[in-house]
Amino acid sequence: MRIENKFPGKDVSPEDLVTKFPLAARKDPFHKSRFKVAGVEFGGDLVPVFAGPNMVESKELIFDIARNIKNSGAHFLRGGAFKPLTFPYRSAKYNETREAGIEWMAEAKAKYGVPIITEVMEEKYISLVAEVADIIQIGSRNMQNYPFITACAKTGKPIMLKRHYGASLRDWLGAAEYILVEGNSQVILCERGVSVPHTHRTTSRFLLDLQVVPAAQELTHLPVVTDPSHATFWRPWVKPMALASVAAGADGIMLEVHPDPDNAAVDPLQPINFNSFEQLMNDMDNIAKAIGRRVR
Amino acid sequence: MRIENKFPGKDVSPEDLVTKFPLAARKDPFHKSRFKVAGVEFGGDLVPVFAGPNMVESKELIFDIARNIKNSGAHFLRGGAFKPLTFPYRSAKYNETREAGIEWMAEAKAKYGVPIITEVMEEKYISLVAEVADIIQIGSRNMQNYPFITACAKTGKPIMLKRHYGASLRDWLGAAEYILVEGNSQVILCERGVSVPHTHRTTSRFLLDLQVVPAAQELTHLPVVTDPSHATFWRPWVKPMALASVAAGADGIMLEVHPDPDNAAVDPLQPINFNSFEQLMNDMDNIAKAIGRRVR
Amino acid sequence: MRIENKFPGKDVSPEDLVTKFPLAARKDPFHKSRFKVAGVEFGGDLVPVFAGPNMVESKELIFDIARNIKNSGAHFLRGGAFKPLTFPYRSAKYNETREAGIEWMAEAKAKYGVPIITEVMEEKYISLVAEVADIIQIGSRNMQNYPFITACAKTGKPIMLKRHYGASLRDWLGAAEYILVEGNSQVILCERGVSVPHTHRTTSRFLLDLQVVPAAQELTHLPVVTDPSHATFWRPWVKPMALASVAAGADGIMLEVHPDPDNAAVDPLQPINFNSFEQLMNDMDNIAKAIGRRVR
Amino acid sequence: MRIENKFPGKDVSPEDLVTKFPLAARKDPFHKSRFKVAGVEFGGDLVPVFAGPNMVESKELIFDIARNIKNSGAHFLRGGAFKPLTFPYRSAKYNETREAGIEWMAEAKAKYGVPIITEVMEEKYISLVAEVADIIQIGSRNMQNYPFITACAKTGKPIMLKRHYGASLRDWLGAAEYILVEGNSQVILCERGVSVPHTHRTTSRFLLDLQVVPAAQELTHLPVVTDPSHATFWRPWVKPMALASVAAGADGIMLEVHPDPDNAAVDPLQPINFNSFEQLMNDMDNIAKAIGRRVR
Repeated sequence: MRIENKFPGKDVSPEDLVTKFPLAARKDPFHKSRFKVAGVEFGGDLVPVFAGPNMVESKELIFDIARNIKNSGAHFLRGGAFKPLTFPYRSAKYNETREAGIEWMAEAKAKYGVPIITEVMEEKYISLVAEVADIIQIGSRNMQNYPFITACAKTGKPIMLKRHYGASLRDWLGAAEYILVEGNSQVILCERGVSVPHTHRTTSRFLLDLQVVPAAQELTHLPVVTDPSHATFWRPWVKPMALASVAAGADGIMLEVHPDPDNAAVDPLQPINFNSFEQLMNDMDNIAKAIGRRVR
Repeated sequence: MRIENKFPGKDVSPEDLVTKFPLAARKDPFHKSRFKVAGVEFGGDLVPVFAGPNMVESKELIFDIARNIKNSGAHFLRGGAFKPLTFPYRSAKYNETREAGIEWMAEAKAKYGVPIITEVMEEKYISLVAEVADIIQIGSRNMQNYPFITACAKTGKPIMLKRHYGASLRDWLGAAEYILVEGNSQVILCERGVSVPHTHRTTSRFLLDLQVVPAAQELTHLPVVTDPSHATFWRPWVKPMALASVAAGADGIMLEVHPDPDNAAVDPLQPINFNSFEQLMNDMDNIAKAIGRRVR
Repeated sequence: MRIENKFPGKDVSPEDLVTKFPLAARKDPFHKSRFKVAGVEFGGDLVPVFAGPNMVESKELIFDIARNIKNSGAHFLRGGAFKPLTFPYRSAKYNETREAGIEWMAEAKAKYGVPIITEVMEEKYISLVAEVADIIQIGSRNMQNYPFITACAKTGKPIMLKRHYGASLRDWLGAAEYILVEGNSQVILCERGVSVPHTHRTTSRFLLDLQVVPAAQELTHLPVVTDPSHATFWRPWVKPMALASVAAGADGIMLEVHPDPDNAAVDPLQPINFNSFEQLMNDMDNIAKAIGRRVR
Repeated sequence: MRIENKFPGKDVSPEDLVTKFPLAARKDPFHKSRFKVAGVEFGGDLVPVFAGPNMVESKELIFDIARNIKNSGAHFLRGGAFKPLTFPYRSAKYNETREAGIEWMAEAKAKYGVPIITEVMEEKYISLVAEVADIIQIGSRNMQNYPFITACAKTGKPIMLKRHYGASLRDWLGAAEYILVEGNSQVILCERGVSVPHTHRTTSRFLLDLQVVPAAQELTHLPVVTDPSHATFWRPWVKPMALASVAAGADGIMLEVHPDPDNAAVDPLQPINFNSFEQLMNDMDNIAKAIGRRVR
């Protein structure tokens, strides 16, 4: 007769906190990591905002966005110079700018004084990205690519670890532990939407799992960020889910911002424009203040 | 060769809005139902709060709770006199109070001036419940019990329709249409948690689907309420998910409140006590005000 | 700190077998219900086949199908005279034949000597259906409608209980216990597809959960049947999933058969025609014989 | 108003077959890849069997298993010398044998004449593994690690690509296309269990998605294998799900076999012993013959 709770290795057990992710585990209810990246504090009252395009399409674009999101109060410029593809064919529009894109971000950072976060996808580009990025982003597809995670961790740079859309909180914390065990303690977790039964899908590909924010904060001291743009994949839902994220206690918000969303090279249904972003910053700050935190 | 988008009946299509749930469908972005129940407006600036125990355990309990939640500003007293059971055996503690429970709620309503919402589970009790309840609750297990829904609708009473944990938004709106087609237009939708892949379950049975709040509001003019207590099944997560619900634009919040949560007859891990409720009302009101709404 | 395995009520525990569904629970590995319905044995070497249209469209249709499926060796004629609808509007084509349909099935049964199984959806029709049907089918939408299940159980007729697409094995066995506790021991479980993350959906609405066949048989002595037509919703997959069901040890197979599948009134993508059914009966019988069972 | 089917990129569309995975796409119903690896044909009447331990624990173990599974008719010896870990800590028992393990497999292959399949997890070990393995296995965690997939493809060795437990068929075929586009056409797909809503989990971590066998075979010409041991994670279900896989039309079966399952170093609940394997080979062969194929 098989009864489930006889089994090892299922979800999170008390032993897991000690043997599986002791470095990521919260020791007590007041245990919360606080660290500064480029002068911006994570894990405190501030809810840092990461804003920018899905893809670093051109130098002009990234300069325009850097200036605008900086003026609206964003703390980090986000943008992808390297972009993963589910299929090995790339349309002309969906053109990675790669080394050039990284260089443009570096220039935008120098000119506008906004620190940057960007994804690296291959070991051979880690050192290039680490030179420029203030935070290295590990994408959800690489969340279980442990040798790669270890290589990123060894740069010593702060790392944002996106949750795979099919990963449990336990698997996610296990991946974070791979970074921490290298002596790199500046780890930020980012929830970006989980895949759900089609009956719950409503009209999006993913469901932003906001419940994981308090759930993760109960188990780990690491800051937990959400990405409502990617999760909802739909512009009108970005604002409500961003506000809900702040209210749920998220330690940061990642947003796609583009001057001309309908003509974004990638995922044009999800970015918001400069005006909407400016307004959303105000609204998020109001929500944050209602719970004793702040976005600005 | 089978290709998915050839298929009829999948999720929501433009035709669905016209042929499947024309009465529930939103006609334009400004189309939003507003109606008053016992003087409390739904669909406007107010975010009504439903508070009370999972089960109406005794007259003393329900009086105590009615007085306290009323003082803290709750708009409706919730409580179950009839409770569904997944198995046909009932422990001594988990004892339905049935007709007596309904009578106690009626007395509490008369004494403290708080309107009530309660679930009915069988056609034979509909008239009994309809006499006393200001809002009839249809539980998630009955969401697809169309003859029963129709019978409830015919009472003319306002109805809260809980979403089944496995139901799509489309199915949910279809069930609502069964009420509307009877000429009963006072329908409130309530999200109470969906079942998700175990890898996403974190440490709860269900996941509160907050994304369905903007998704439903895009398709229907009906008010959309959430139930963070039932969804999270875990006291410490009730507050963050209640605040997130308000921030996401929910049109009402349902909460389990009990004077002695650890000794609640049913689901003792999820209710909050009077002090926590009072504090949460303040916090929800602050969040609501940050987006131009109010809880008080 | 919340740790999952502290929680009661999750999935199946050893206590559940004793306290939640003691009548449905298997007592030992050799404990398997065997009973005959209209001379057809369930729970033994035979794998009974239920075949027929989704909807009893007309007398001619049901007579034609009864004769053909009987000739091919089917054990029961299936067909719906009452059909649930997700929305309260019914197209002309999708027209329930109700009392007339039940009457036609009775006549087909008398003429061709094939016992019948049909769904009842409302308490008021139970006695009508119970008079004619050899097995009463409780549809997935009613799997948690306990008062209705109890009323069906009280007829004393054999009952096929379909699993809700969102229900756990534990919930399913709980619903079966509601029948058994009434002293009605002729209960057949039927798996008809579960809803899954969209990433697994491939190109169907549901996924036939074949793993639940051995899982259910490990926990209960009741026969477990599968419905590949409804689960796959796609004609070309019916055969492989029917054969796989037999190989997995299913105690019966339910199939949609229609003389002109493309013009079936309901779900025309899933029925198979008479020739395919005849061939499938042969193939299923060959598979069954490979594991010491038989379809014919 | 957002309506789902306006969206690009969801599941499989007719365009996907032409633009996303043209090399993996089936051109017509008779288009099926056939190729031989170490004299064993894939894509034909034979259903090759891969058998062996989860982990290559010792030279003695792998020799013992190689001899036994070869005698029972297995076509390939499987076994992991490199094993991924969800957490960065390794128990003494769970000890990778790495280069030594690969060497022992090479010796077992030489001695018993059984070709081998084994997983490689890091780019730096690809050449080592490619020298010895007849088929390189890419594990589910690496299914979206495209640079790594490309590097494996360039070896020119046959590749088995396991499906990620959260990946759609579309994503899986996209990953296969990354291999094919390198000119490497010997690609085998392997389904190893998907994560499902906890309500469907029954009593296992994963659900073997057998419906994906006909679904994949409808879209691609590549052979589709299943891994019932890993998916069910439970010895008693391995046999029914292996037989069901053959009946569903799987083009190969992967099984965990160990001389002393209860003392296997990894996942001791899932392997079967030599006697069970011998018996299962007979049963699978009988099932295969019922549908015009063969295992022996």
